[in-house]
Amino acid sequence: MAKELKELTSRSENYSQWYNDLVIKADLAENSAVRGCMVIKPYGYAIWEKMQAELDRMFKETGHVNAYFPLFIPKSFLSKEADHVEGFAKECAVVTHYRLKNSSDGRGLIVDPEAKLEEELIVRPTSETIIWNTYKNWIQSYRDLPILVNQWANVVRWEMRTRLFLRTAEFLWQEGHTAHATEEEAVEESIKMMNVYADFAENFMGVPVVKGTKTANERFAGALETFCIEALMQDGKALQAGTSHFLGQNFAKAFDVTFLDKSNKLDYVWASSWGVSTRLMGALIMTHSDDNGLVLPPKLAPYQVVIVPIYKNEEQLTSITQKVNDIIAKLKSKGISVKYDSSDTKKPGWKFAEYELKGVPVRLAIGARDLENGTIEVARRDKLSKETVSLENIEDYIADLLDDIQHNIFQKALDFRTSVTREVNSYDEFKEEIEKGGFLLCHWDGTSETEEKIKEETKATIRCIPFDGDKTPGKCMVTGAPSTQRVIFARAY
Amino acid sequence: MAKELKELTSRSENYSQWYNDLVIKADLAENSAVRGCMVIKPYGYAIWEKMQAELDRMFKETGHVNAYFPLFIPKSFLSKEADHVEGFAKECAVVTHYRLKNSSDGRGLIVDPEAKLEEELIVRPTSETIIWNTYKNWIQSYRDLPILVNQWANVVRWEMRTRLFLRTAEFLWQEGHTAHATEEEAVEESIKMMNVYADFAENFMGVPVVKGTKTANERFAGALETFCIEALMQDGKALQAGTSHFLGQNFAKAFDVTFLDKSNKLDYVWASSWGVSTRLMGALIMTHSDDNGLVLPPKLAPYQVVIVPIYKNEEQLTSITQKVNDIIAKLKSKGISVKYDSSDTKKPGWKFAEYELKGVPVRLAIGARDLENGTIEVARRDKLSKETVSLENIEDYIADLLDDIQHNIFQKALDFRTSVTREVNSYDEFKEEIEKGGFLLCHWDGTSETEEKIKEETKATIRCIPFDGDKTPGKCMVTGAPSTQRVIFARAY
Repeated sequence: MAKELKELTSRSENYSQWYNDLVIKADLAENSAVRGCMVIKPYGYAIWEKMQAELDRMFKETGHVNAYFPLFIPKSFLSKEADHVEGFAKECAVVTHYRLKNSSDGRGLIVDPEAKLEEELIVRPTSETIIWNTYKNWIQSYRDLPILVNQWANVVRWEMRTRLFLRTAEFLWQEGHTAHATEEEAVEESIKMMNVYADFAENFMGVPVVKGTKTANERFAGALETFCIEALMQDGKALQAGTSHFLGQNFAKAFDVTFLDKSNKLDYVWASSWGVSTRLMGALIMTHSDDNGLVLPPKLAPYQVVIVPIYKNEEQLTSITQKVNDIIAKLKSKGISVKYDSSDTKKPGWKFAEYELKGVPVRLAIGARDLENGTIEVARRDKLSKETVSLENIEDYIADLLDDIQHNIFQKALDFRTSVTREVNSYDEFKEEIEKGGFLLCHWDGTSETEEKIKEETKATIRCIPFDGDKTPGKCMVTGAPSTQRVIFARAY
Repeated sequence: MAKELKELTSRSENYSQWYNDLVIKADLAENSAVRGCMVIKPYGYAIWEKMQAELDRMFKETGHVNAYFPLFIPKSFLSKEADHVEGFAKECAVVTHYRLKNSSDGRGLIVDPEAKLEEELIVRPTSETIIWNTYKNWIQSYRDLPILVNQWANVVRWEMRTRLFLRTAEFLWQEGHTAHATEEEAVEESIKMMNVYADFAENFMGVPVVKGTKTANERFAGALETFCIEALMQDGKALQAGTSHFLGQNFAKAFDVTFLDKSNKLDYVWASSWGVSTRLMGALIMTHSDDNGLVLPPKLAPYQVVIVPIYKNEEQLTSITQKVNDIIAKLKSKGISVKYDSSDTKKPGWKFAEYELKGVPVRLAIGARDLENGTIEVARRDKLSKETVSLENIEDYIADLLDDIQHNIFQKALDFRTSVTREVNSYDEFKEEIEKGGFLLCHWDGTSETEEKIKEETKATIRCIPFDGDKTPGKCMVTGAPSTQRVIFARAY
């Protein structure tokens, strides 16, 4: 789209600028005319669609169904859960009127003062309130439980500082909202979905994550426990990639949702909610990409292979295209998606750079000599390496290569994370180390006061109390008070 | 969900009540706490998901890609296309503020007057304006064209009288927005998408439609030509099922979107837009369903077959289940979706009524005697008939049966439409006939005045100027002025 292929800012020069350049130049997304809202462009949206398809499949395999609830939430609903309103009232889009009209002074469209809503509506920042108000009518007895519902939707949070994919006023996400007869079952569900998210992040996105729980400070507004997956970006900053909340009976109490249990006793319903968003696109981009552009995991690439013909005349192009059609058929038989770019308005060199920028996992180039030799040039995006291979069984070769790339980018990200994850034992050391980025494993006394002091003084937060790893007790690096296990500190997106 | 299986209101008794009852009792959707906004329940949403999947596949096969544009439209954008603003300003949700706060008098949450937006934002009623404002930056030359983009999204139109699926303040839809170098290409695209919609309606939904163009009165606000597909419901009322608009250069001019053509001449870009919405759910329900409940086309049913075991004790259930597992495997090998309902809290009779209500195309019942005889009872929802058949090659039998049901419900709807479509030649006859419902083929003089007079006096509108059928000229039934062909009149949803 008439875009010049300029070089990206390099990561070492300015990481933040590199990210913005990349999102724009790889045609993933751009800022819109509406403050804080982005346009997700076709190439970016194609990646998001692949993410959605896999997640949706995983949700359905774990027994969930999709539904759809209103975009708007009556203002009074927000107030019903005390913590929830604190968390969301400060940054929401408020609908106050339902009509425009032409101004009498001819100065154009104005809000019609006579079309004022009796009660203002909030554009959903998350849907617990409207959904639990609905569940009230769906649930009478334990036979109506569990309810395992997910919604794909757009939500709005009026963020003041926005960045494409990472923090936007409107974003796309899924939000699961489940209702259960017992506390145990609701906790189990919350943990199950954290595990689904971790599985997706690692095995599809190729992004290694740490599973754990949030501290009280970092918990979702209205939750008793927030489970999360935390990723680490190449600049050493953490990114919360998904959260799953055990909501206790908070929303059931706020919306009076009760049920008769098996012993005919009335009780409030137990809840979980969980979500991931287009923010995952940011995690994907920042985990794998390099100074040449995007690096995509084969499992989420809009097309996994691009084929570029190298020819001097129409005749050569015709014979190459004939051979390429064979190759495409073979690749497709293996479920591999392919794009053949035979457009004659761009030179091969331009195409190579373009598909490198767009992160296509494998690039094949084929010329007249290859036709003679029965070979093809195979370039892999992750290592920027290339080799010439025989066309015999090319489909098996490429299938293996895609697996290898998928594995390699995960391993590379994991190795990086390992290299910047370290134990820190004193607060002085911490202040020095946090400047270098990465995950710092530290003892903490479990109080919000200490956590806040550290945040104020170093901008680092506790990313999670990890499930796995060393559980040796110790002493808080700040107060010296006892600590049951190390927690993960980092600066975060 | 603790729902009693009460009888539906019959269609003859009260068609409108029958529709509402059915939508609620079949668990398709319900009204929410927000005026005019619905909750789409899991069973209803599963049908919508099937519709989406097929449409999305058809859009991609015709070269389109998906993208996402902001939910909000700056107020000033709406005003830029004169007809467009007339069509949409009167019924829109207006965001005026971006924050709530606690009131100083302790009376709860109020809109923070200090968080007033400089320019109000409209929740999109359709996205031409925000999209063409974006295309401005995407298009410089003919090489950037065509742009063939579709968006799946929610939109809001502040309707005063709402009905589940048919007319709701918020609804889900897809909106295609394409940009072309020539008028011819844009018209071709608009017609192509009308044909895609017709193909989908007839071959997936089983809903026969008439293709045609709208009169100037009924055109989309901002279009030069609106192509449409019109369906006919069982009560004789028409339902507009999908529209595709040729927008000319109207939006390109409003948003100053120009391009250099092949001869290096600057021109405005040509446009189309096209959409179908959750309204299709209403068309689906009202075309096929009966007094026993929903009738679903096999191609869109969340599950095509339900199996109900008939047993007296656990032992019988165990042997039946064993056999059923075989049957399920065989059906799945044919791509047939199956639900096995072996729950022991409901009697078979209750289950039969429930799945009839929910429109499952085929119900299989199997008991101890069937096991002995190697048979199974097969009931088809469309004809409410049943027979006992051999289990041998049951998968082929069911596959054929599903095809037959798909074909039969379409044919039945087509026969009905044919039976209530007739030529009417005088306005007196028209006034009488319109009371009986159906499509009336009449000569009309082509003027908006006559069309409006007819609408005022009879509540009938011109549904479309049909593409196919008799093109014999005649004289307007009202004014006697010449008419080039008969057009279709009906009362409509």
